[in-house]
Amino acid sequence: MATAPTSKPTRPRRDKQAEAAEGVDIGTLDDSVGYHLRRAQLAVFDDFIRTLSPVDLRPAQFSVLTVIEHNPGLSQVQVCDALGIQRTNFVPLLDELEERGLARRERGQDRRSYALYLTDAGHDLMKRARRAYAGHERRINEMIGADGYDQIIRLLVKLADLHR
Amino acid sequence: MATAPTSKPTRPRRDKQAEAAEGVDIGTLDDSVGYHLRRAQLAVFDDFIRTLSPVDLRPAQFSVLTVIEHNPGLSQVQVCDALGIQRTNFVPLLDELEERGLARRERGQDRRSYALYLTDAGHDLMKRARRAYAGHERRINEMIGADGYDQIIRLLVKLADLHR
Repeated sequence: MATAPTSKPTRPRRDKQAEAAEGVDIGTLDDSVGYHLRRAQLAVFDDFIRTLSPVDLRPAQFSVLTVIEHNPGLSQVQVCDALGIQRTNFVPLLDELEERGLARRERGQDRRSYALYLTDAGHDLMKRARRAYAGHERRINEMIGADGYDQIIRLLVKLADLHR
Repeated sequence: MATAPTSKPTRPRRDKQAEAAEGVDIGTLDDSVGYHLRRAQLAVFDDFIRTLSPVDLRPAQFSVLTVIEHNPGLSQVQVCDALGIQRTNFVPLLDELEERGLARRERGQDRRSYALYLTDAGHDLMKRARRAYAGHERRINEMIGADGYDQIIRLLVKLADLHR
């Protein structure tokens, strides 16, 4: 703990699961933003996946469909850049959405790029997805309150700028 | 946006990379805690991995070594439970730490479980790792301030309790 500039040895342990694990001491991890980010992300994604299971959309698929819906005709590269998705991961993801009849590629003007659109089925699914998604956001809001909600998004956006 | 109870359509876009991606509208994602959690987690892990590259430790390896260091003799099951690691993912991770001579398994009293310890080389590496890690935490502190640091950990711990 002594080497971490932000460590506060007197602060009580905050990680309930670690406490539950038979008094295991997680040491400096209790003060680690990265450690707590990962645990929160797993819990939030788990809730998201359960909530969206009726429409069978994973978080990355939901993000891609949301961006295409808001920006019809966008190129694959633009979607990847906007979401920070690796291009090698994007192709199979989009293939699956196309196979399910939710999105379609259309040859672009320069014939080397594709413009992306939702199909009618894609628009319909996203309407259902947004209704389910509202429940997910509501549960998060209940956990941390409206102020906490604004606070955490503000702080997360700052952290995402690390190394840019 | 209309379906999300926490949406604030008048709030300016906060995601700088999305803005940079040629005015792409990320829609409801801008109000999504999950979306911003994931982006922040990737940025923080990226910084962690760069910082810890001299000692060649990934975040999960650092977490496991930290917990074993603070709790010598802990069983594999206890380490997994404390860190929320899947047991199938833990075995290859521990194998690698053992092959590198950083940790060792010792047959437990009931002969079915292993007690885990750091080797002397493991203790030495963790000393170096903690010095590097202090720089990582300092950079995060500079991004969000000491108050932001306490706030975000408090909020992340709450979110990690979703679905428990």
